[in-house]
Amino acid sequence: MPLWYGGDHNPEQWPEQMWAEDVALMRRAGVTLVTVGVFSWSRLEPSEGRYDFGWLDRALGLLADAGIGVDLAVPTASPPPWFSLAHPDALTVTRDGVRLTHGSRDTYCVSAPAYREASLRITRVLGERYRGHPALTMWHVHNEYGTPCHCDHSAAAFRAWLRRRYGTLDALNDAWTTAFWSQRYSDWEQITPPRATQYLPNPAQALDFRRFVSDEMLAHFREQRDVLRELTPGVPVTTNYVMAGWASVDHWKWSREVDLVAIDHYPSGQGMAAAEQSAFAADLARSWAGGRPWLLMEQATGYVLGPRVTPKEPGEIARHSLQHVARGSKGVMFFQWRASRGGAEQWHPGMVPHAGPDSRVFREIRALGEALKRIPAPPDGPVLDAEVAILWDEEAWWAVQGPGLPSAEIDYLSAAEQAHRVLWRQGVTACFAHPSHDLTACRAVLVPSLYLISDEAARNLAAYVEGGGTLVVSFFSGIADEHTRVRLGGYPGALREVLGVRVEEFRPLAGPVTLTDFGAATVWSEVVHLHGAEAVARYPGGGPAVTRHRFGDGTAWYVSTRLGDSGYARVLARAGLTGSGVPGVEVVRRRDLVFAINHTGDEQPAPVRGIDLITGDPVPGVLRPGECVVAAREDTGGPADPRAR
Amino acid sequence: MPLWYGGDHNPEQWPEQMWAEDVALMRRAGVTLVTVGVFSWSRLEPSEGRYDFGWLDRALGLLADAGIGVDLAVPTASPPPWFSLAHPDALTVTRDGVRLTHGSRDTYCVSAPAYREASLRITRVLGERYRGHPALTMWHVHNEYGTPCHCDHSAAAFRAWLRRRYGTLDALNDAWTTAFWSQRYSDWEQITPPRATQYLPNPAQALDFRRFVSDEMLAHFREQRDVLRELTPGVPVTTNYVMAGWASVDHWKWSREVDLVAIDHYPSGQGMAAAEQSAFAADLARSWAGGRPWLLMEQATGYVLGPRVTPKEPGEIARHSLQHVARGSKGVMFFQWRASRGGAEQWHPGMVPHAGPDSRVFREIRALGEALKRIPAPPDGPVLDAEVAILWDEEAWWAVQGPGLPSAEIDYLSAAEQAHRVLWRQGVTACFAHPSHDLTACRAVLVPSLYLISDEAARNLAAYVEGGGTLVVSFFSGIADEHTRVRLGGYPGALREVLGVRVEEFRPLAGPVTLTDFGAATVWSEVVHLHGAEAVARYPGGGPAVTRHRFGDGTAWYVSTRLGDSGYARVLARAGLTGSGVPGVEVVRRRDLVFAINHTGDEQPAPVRGIDLITGDPVPGVLRPGECVVAAREDTGGPADPRAR
Amino acid sequence: MPLWYGGDHNPEQWPEQMWAEDVALMRRAGVTLVTVGVFSWSRLEPSEGRYDFGWLDRALGLLADAGIGVDLAVPTASPPPWFSLAHPDALTVTRDGVRLTHGSRDTYCVSAPAYREASLRITRVLGERYRGHPALTMWHVHNEYGTPCHCDHSAAAFRAWLRRRYGTLDALNDAWTTAFWSQRYSDWEQITPPRATQYLPNPAQALDFRRFVSDEMLAHFREQRDVLRELTPGVPVTTNYVMAGWASVDHWKWSREVDLVAIDHYPSGQGMAAAEQSAFAADLARSWAGGRPWLLMEQATGYVLGPRVTPKEPGEIARHSLQHVARGSKGVMFFQWRASRGGAEQWHPGMVPHAGPDSRVFREIRALGEALKRIPAPPDGPVLDAEVAILWDEEAWWAVQGPGLPSAEIDYLSAAEQAHRVLWRQGVTACFAHPSHDLTACRAVLVPSLYLISDEAARNLAAYVEGGGTLVVSFFSGIADEHTRVRLGGYPGALREVLGVRVEEFRPLAGPVTLTDFGAATVWSEVVHLHGAEAVARYPGGGPAVTRHRFGDGTAWYVSTRLGDSGYARVLARAGLTGSGVPGVEVVRRRDLVFAINHTGDEQPAPVRGIDLITGDPVPGVLRPGECVVAAREDTGGPADPRAR
Repeated sequence: MPLWYGGDHNPEQWPEQMWAEDVALMRRAGVTLVTVGVFSWSRLEPSEGRYDFGWLDRALGLLADAGIGVDLAVPTASPPPWFSLAHPDALTVTRDGVRLTHGSRDTYCVSAPAYREASLRITRVLGERYRGHPALTMWHVHNEYGTPCHCDHSAAAFRAWLRRRYGTLDALNDAWTTAFWSQRYSDWEQITPPRATQYLPNPAQALDFRRFVSDEMLAHFREQRDVLRELTPGVPVTTNYVMAGWASVDHWKWSREVDLVAIDHYPSGQGMAAAEQSAFAADLARSWAGGRPWLLMEQATGYVLGPRVTPKEPGEIARHSLQHVARGSKGVMFFQWRASRGGAEQWHPGMVPHAGPDSRVFREIRALGEALKRIPAPPDGPVLDAEVAILWDEEAWWAVQGPGLPSAEIDYLSAAEQAHRVLWRQGVTACFAHPSHDLTACRAVLVPSLYLISDEAARNLAAYVEGGGTLVVSFFSGIADEHTRVRLGGYPGALREVLGVRVEEFRPLAGPVTLTDFGAATVWSEVVHLHGAEAVARYPGGGPAVTRHRFGDGTAWYVSTRLGDSGYARVLARAGLTGSGVPGVEVVRRRDLVFAINHTGDEQPAPVRGIDLITGDPVPGVLRPGECVVAAREDTGGPADPRAR
Repeated sequence: MPLWYGGDHNPEQWPEQMWAEDVALMRRAGVTLVTVGVFSWSRLEPSEGRYDFGWLDRALGLLADAGIGVDLAVPTASPPPWFSLAHPDALTVTRDGVRLTHGSRDTYCVSAPAYREASLRITRVLGERYRGHPALTMWHVHNEYGTPCHCDHSAAAFRAWLRRRYGTLDALNDAWTTAFWSQRYSDWEQITPPRATQYLPNPAQALDFRRFVSDEMLAHFREQRDVLRELTPGVPVTTNYVMAGWASVDHWKWSREVDLVAIDHYPSGQGMAAAEQSAFAADLARSWAGGRPWLLMEQATGYVLGPRVTPKEPGEIARHSLQHVARGSKGVMFFQWRASRGGAEQWHPGMVPHAGPDSRVFREIRALGEALKRIPAPPDGPVLDAEVAILWDEEAWWAVQGPGLPSAEIDYLSAAEQAHRVLWRQGVTACFAHPSHDLTACRAVLVPSLYLISDEAARNLAAYVEGGGTLVVSFFSGIADEHTRVRLGGYPGALREVLGVRVEEFRPLAGPVTLTDFGAATVWSEVVHLHGAEAVARYPGGGPAVTRHRFGDGTAWYVSTRLGDSGYARVLARAGLTGSGVPGVEVVRRRDLVFAINHTGDEQPAPVRGIDLITGDPVPGVLRPGECVVAAREDTGGPADPRAR
Repeated sequence: MPLWYGGDHNPEQWPEQMWAEDVALMRRAGVTLVTVGVFSWSRLEPSEGRYDFGWLDRALGLLADAGIGVDLAVPTASPPPWFSLAHPDALTVTRDGVRLTHGSRDTYCVSAPAYREASLRITRVLGERYRGHPALTMWHVHNEYGTPCHCDHSAAAFRAWLRRRYGTLDALNDAWTTAFWSQRYSDWEQITPPRATQYLPNPAQALDFRRFVSDEMLAHFREQRDVLRELTPGVPVTTNYVMAGWASVDHWKWSREVDLVAIDHYPSGQGMAAAEQSAFAADLARSWAGGRPWLLMEQATGYVLGPRVTPKEPGEIARHSLQHVARGSKGVMFFQWRASRGGAEQWHPGMVPHAGPDSRVFREIRALGEALKRIPAPPDGPVLDAEVAILWDEEAWWAVQGPGLPSAEIDYLSAAEQAHRVLWRQGVTACFAHPSHDLTACRAVLVPSLYLISDEAARNLAAYVEGGGTLVVSFFSGIADEHTRVRLGGYPGALREVLGVRVEEFRPLAGPVTLTDFGAATVWSEVVHLHGAEAVARYPGGGPAVTRHRFGDGTAWYVSTRLGDSGYARVLARAGLTGSGVPGVEVVRRRDLVFAINHTGDEQPAPVRGIDLITGDPVPGVLRPGECVVAAREDTGGPADPRAR
C-alpha cells in the first residue's frame, strides 16, 4: 500500500472556479488524500436543521474523479454562530467565569447537552450522505480535542464522573485530602470544577478535573465514532491529537478507542531541535499505537510556534516527513493544502503558499510527493524494534503542572525530551511506555521526573529490575501516589526499595553546582542516603548525587539532579546504553527498510548500502548535507518494541 | 492674531478664595485662554436634571474680567456617579465581559441610549447658558475619545454599522473570510464585537470593530457639535485628540468634522527623542488639518509617560512649545494650570507646580508667556511647505495590531517615526498623507510598513510614480486588502508592479544580519525576486534586500527589511532625499517666519539672520545651547504641503 | 513560666491510629503547646448545624493526657463547602467582579451577614464545648486576616463605615478630591469599593477601602473574641498576623484588641537576610505589643516564599527561633507539626518532615525543644530597652502602594527594612513607633519614606526634635495628608519647618549618581533649597542631597535620595547613631538575660560571659559558627523602649 500524501483542503474558503485548478495542482504534487470539512459546520448547516451539501458534493466529486481520497471531517470543533446564539449555555466558560463567545474556534462545552445533540445530528447526517462515496477513505472526528470548560454542565458531568470513580464521598475526601483547609465535602452537589478561588487550589481536584476533561471528550468522540461505525463499517475513524506543551488528553486511553492514531506535529524548535522533536513526536505516536503504524495528520511547511512564522529551510520539509514515515506514519499530511487569504490563521504556511505554485515551497512539495510514491507504507504490525523505553504518563505530567510544588522548574516534558534526545543522538531508537506496561523485553527503561507513580506501576518497575532490567530514574519520580499524595518515610516513596536509596530532603538549586562526575547539575539537588545503592557521583558537599543499585538480576540507577545532555549521556553509557550513530545522521530500521537522514550541514559517510528507493540508484558512499536515502535492510533486528506485541 | 496661551483650569478643585489669586497669576504668566469644565459634569449636574452653574458663572466671570478667553468643555468624558448608578447598562464592558464601574473616568458606553441622551442634555444646557458669554472662545467637546465598549448596546450598534457597510451578509462573510473556522453568519443577530473567545479572533472582525468604534464616537461628537453650532454659530467646536501608541480613532475622518484640529502631546522619550516626537506629532496634526493651523491643546511641564514622572529640563518647555508653534499650532496649552492636590493625577505636573509660583517651572512658564506675546499666530491657510510625505493610515495600523501576524515585531508607528526622524535630523520638514490623497506635488513619498493598502490607494501610488514621483516603500506594505485579506501571487500584492519585485517568502529575523550596503538589518527579511527592479543592496545569502525600479517617469524603492536610522538615511540619500540641516538644530520655515531651535547642548552657528522676535535684538551669530530664535523669513518657499491645497 | 513550643497540629489530616504516635513524638520533641482546628470547620460542622466533635474530643484528650496545651482555633478562615453552596452571596468577589468559589481557603466576604452569623455560631458552640477543658490554653481566632472583598455586602458596609468616618458627603467629597474627574457623590448609595474601572482609580478611595477592610475584619474578630471572653474569661484570645509585603491590616489598631500579639513569620530572603528579617519582624511584633511579650505563632523549618521551597540550613531553625525569643516571644511555634501528605500546601515544611522523625530536621527540632526548656519565657512588662525608633504606619504604606505616584520604585517596606538592618548590623536593637506615639524617650527616630503624615503626627515630630531629639527623615516622607492630598508650597509639606528645607521638584532617577559624601544614590533625587538647614552632602549638580538642621534642642536630618546601606549607616553615624556590634553577631539584652547568636560562618569572640543557660556550661571565649548562647545579663539598661511605658 502506498503512503498517503496531502493535507487539509478547504474548498469553502475559495471561489468554486479555483477548485478544479486545485485538484489539478494536487495531482501534480502527487497528493493522494485530503482532509475536508474540519471547519465547515457553518457552511454545511447554515441554520439549525437546514443543510447545504451541494458544494461538498461537488468538491468531493472533483476529488473522486481525480482519484484522491478524502479524510472526511465531522466538524464539531467549531459550532456555527447560530448554535452559540441559540445555546449560550453551551459556550465555554473559563475558570474565572467568563463565558467565551464564538468568533474563534472551539467555543463549546463538551458536556452541554445541546452541543452533544447537535454533534450527533451533524455526524449522522454526514455519515448518511457520504457513506459509500468513492472518495471516502477515513473519518476525521473533531480537531485537536483539549478545551476545558468550567460551566455548570461541566460541573454536573464532573460530579457524575467523580461518583463513578470514587463511589463514596468518604473515598473522595480521602483521595483529595480535603481535611486540609476545611474542604471536606458532605454532599456531591458541593463539588465544582477548579474554578477561580482565593489562593492555591487543591492539587488532587485539579488533577481529577484534567482526567475528567480527557474522559468527557473521549465520550464525545466515541459517540460520533459509534454512529460512523454503524453507518460505514470498515471505514476507519480517527481524530488528530495535538502535541503540545499542555498535554490536552490522556493519549494512552484515547489510543485504545481510535481506529488509527493520528497526530499533529509543529516543532517549537528549529534546525536540529526540530528534527529531535519530530523523532520524539513520532516515537510517541507509534508507542500510543502499540508499536504499529499511525498517521502524521498535520505538519506545516514552516515554523508556526514562537514569535515568528518562518518557512522551513530547504530540504527540511522532506527530512521531517521521512522521519515520521521511518517511525511508522502511514502518510505525510499537512495543514493545509493552500495557505488562507483571510481568517485567524492566514499566516499559517501551506503546501501552496500565498505566492502560489511558482515557489520553492511548492517545488519541494512536488519533489516530496515524487519520493513518497517510491516508499511503501509501513505494513500492519510492529513497525520497528525499540529496545529502550521512556516512561510516559500524561497524568503524571498534569500533576507536575499543579500548584505549590517545591520548584517551578520541574518540567516533565523537557526531562522526557532530554532522555529521548540523548538516545537519538547516539542512534538509539526509543519507544515510550506507560508505567504499568509489560517492560520485560526492554533493554533499559528511563524514568524522567515522573512525579506520580501508582502502587501497581511501582511493583511493575521493581519486577522489571528484579528480572534483569536496567532502570534509570531521574529526580522527582515516584514521589506521589495517583491522588498526588506524597509517599512518606523518605523520597522517592514508590522507588526507595528498587533504587536502594532514601532521600531525606529536597534542595532545589538556584544556580549550577558541579558533581564529582557527569559535569554540572542544575535545578534540583537532594540529600540522598544509601540503603544498598552505591554512589557513582557526588555533590560538592559529598552527598550522593547519582547512584547505582543491584536489585535482583538488574540494576537501578538514580539521578537526583538535572544533568546536562552530555552528563546524562554519560550516565546512560555507564548503564550500558550506547549507540553507534553519528550525531545528526539519523538511521531508522523500519522492518525491512533502513531510512538514513543527514540532518547536518556536512557530508557524512553513508550508514547504509544498497539501492536508494527514492532515486533508484545505489546509495552513494557519502550523504550530501541534508540528504535522505531509503534502502532495503540487511541486518535483522533485536527484540521488538515491547508495546508492539 | 496673537497665539493662545494657557491650560486646563479647574477651579472646582480649589477653594473659591483661591480663584482670584489664580486669575492674577495667569495674568502674570501671560495666559490668554483656559480650558474649563472638562471633568465638571458631577459638579454642574449634581443629580439628574438638577444644575449648579453658580460656581461656573463666577469662575468665568473672573476670567472674562481679566480678558482671558475660555475653551468651554462639554463634560461628557466623565459621567457623574449618579448617572452610573441610574444607568448601569451605560457603563463600559470589557472584552472579558467585566462591566466597569465609575471611580476613574471614561466609564461609559458611547452607544448606550442613556449616555447619548444625557450627553445631549448637558450640552444643550451649557450651550444655552453660556452662549454670548464674553469669555467664550471655543467649545471643547469631550476629552481624548477612544474607549471601546463590548456591551449589548455596542453590539447592536456594531451590527447596524456593519449592515450599512456591507449591505448583505454574503458580502460580510466574504470580507471577513468567515469560511475559516466555521464562522459563517446566517443572521445579523449572530454578530458581536470581538469579545473574549477561545483562541485567535477573526482579524477582519477586529479591524471593523475598531473602525466602528471610531465612527460611533464621531457620531457622538457630531451630535454635540451640531447642538453647539446651532446655539453659538461662529464659535469653533473642537475635541482634543490623544496621540498615543494605540491609535484611538481615525483622525483623517475626524479632522473633516472638527472646526479646529487639536491634539494632546506627551512624549514618551526624553531629551532629543522628545524633540523628535514633538515634531512628529505637530506634523501629523497639521497634516490632519489639511496643512492649515491647528492647536496644541495639552502638553505637560514634565514627562508623564513611563515609570517615572520627571520635570522637563530647563528650556525644554519653551523648545517643545515653539516646535509646535513653528509647525502651525495656534497656541500653547497645557494640562493643567495648577497641579492637583488630590485625585488620580495629583502627580501630573502643572504650569503652577505643587511648590507654587516660586519655582523654576513657573518662572519658565512666565518667560514663555512673554515670548509668545511677540510671535504671531499662524495665519489661516497653508502653514508651510513640506515636500516629502509619509503615508499615514490608522486603519493599516490597527490591522497590524491584529492577531497572528508572522512577527510580533512589525510596528507601524515606529516605522513611521523612523521615517520622520531621519528626515527631521536632516532638516527636512515632512508632512503626512493618506494613501488615497493626491500626492503629485510631493518630491517623495515614504511608505512605512503599511500592511493594508486598498486597490484605490495602490493605483494612486502607481500613478504618483508614473508621473515622476519617488516612492520609498518599507517591508510589509501593501500586503493585505482593506479586509485584511492577503493579496496573492507574491508579495507585496498591491505594489508588485510599481516596485518591480515579487516576494516569494517572508523570513522574519531573530537577530541582525549585515547587508552589502546600508549596514545592519533586523526584524525582517524576504526572498525578493527582481521583475524589473535592480538590487541596490543584498542579503548575506545574495538575495536582493533593497531595490530600485524605474516606473514611468519616477522611481520606486523597496526596503525589504528594517534598517537602522543611518542605513535608512542612506537609502533616502540615494533616492535624492537629503537636507542641509545640522543635527539637533531645528529650522522650520512657517510662511514668512523662520524658527530656529538649538536642541543640542552645544553652541551652534545660527542658521538664520535678522531680528529675533523674542528678544527684539538681531539674531546673534551663534545659538547658545537650548536657544530658540524666531526671525522673518528671507527666502521663498518651494511647493507647499500637498495636503494644504 | 516556660516558653511555649510547638506548632499547628492537624489530626484530622491523619488516620486516628497515628495520633498517639504523634503525641509521643511531641513529647520527645519537648512540645508544650499546639494549635488545633484552624482549618477544621468542614470536619467540625459537616453540614449546617450538624456537629461532629468526637474526633476533636479524642484528639484534645490525648494532648491533655500528655500535658500539652492547646491553642484552640475558631475555624472561620475557611468556611465549609456546604456554606458556600448555601450562601453564594457570602463568597469573595474580586475587583473585576469574579465571584470566587471554595476550593482553596479564605473564600468569604467578611461583611456578608450569613458569614458573620455562621462565624458566631461555630465560635459559641466551640466555646461552650471546650470551656474548662484541661488542655485549653488560648483561643486562636481565624487565620491571617486580610482578604478583601468587593461585593455588594462589602459596598454597603464600606458606605456605612464612610458615613461614620466623614459624617457628610461634602466632607467625603473634599477628602477624596472628587472634584477631579467628575467623581463628586451626591448620594451615599453612589459609592462603591474600588472595583475595576477604566483607568487610574481615586487614591483616597483606594486608601479608605484598605482602612475599611482592616476595620471590618477587626469587627469580625471582636465579635468572636467577645463570645469567647464571655464563655471562658481568663483564657487569652489571639489571632495570628500575617507579615507580608501587602500589609493586610492596621496592626497598631488590632494590637489594642488582642490579648496577645501573635505573628506568622516566613522570611523571603535566606541566610543573613533571613536573620535580618527575623529581627525586623520580632521588633515589629514587640512594638505592636507595646514593648511587652508576644508570640511567634508560625514559622517554618524551611524557606517557603520565592520560586523554590528549601530546608533551612543546619542551625538556622534554632537561630531564628532564639532571635524571636530574645525579642520577646513567649514561645516558638511552627506551621505545622507534621508536613501534609496532600492538599495545597503539601510541600510546606513541617517539624516532622515527609521523611519522618529519622531526619536532620526533626533532630534539630528535638534539640531546640531541649534548649528552650532551659530558657525562661519573657516576664510581663517591657521586654528590653530600645533607644532608637523607626516610624511604622501601615496607612502610609497603603498610600504608597496607590496609583499614579511619580515613581513606581518608592517602597516603604524596603526603606523601613534598610533602616532596621543598618542598626541591627551595628548591634542596635530598635523598636517601631507610630508617628503619633510619644517619642520623648527615644535617642533617635528614623522616618523611612513615610509618604503620608497627619498634622498631629507632624506636630509630634517637631516637638520631639525641639525637645532635643534626633530625627532622620528619608525622601518622600510627609508629602501627603491623611487623605493622600499633597501638602502644597514645597515638599515635604509636613516637615519643611523641622527639616529647614523646601523641596521644589522631585527628580526620580533612572540610574545611580554619586554624592559628594555617602556614596551612590539611586531611585530618587530632589531639588532641595536650604531654609535653615546646612548641606552635608550634595548631588553632582551641586544641590543639597543630605541636610542637617538644628531645631530647638534637637537635630533633624534629611536624606533626599535612596542611599546604599553603607551610605545610610554613615549618615546615622554622623547623627550619632553607632553601635558596638560585630556584624552578624547578634546580641540582645532581654531584661536580665543576654542572647548572643553567631549568624556568621566564622568563629567570633563571645560578646557575653557567664553560664550559658542552654549548655549549663560557662560561655566559651569564642562562639562557633552558628552558635547561640544565653547568659545572665551583667550590665543595666538605658532608657526602655518608649512603647513599653
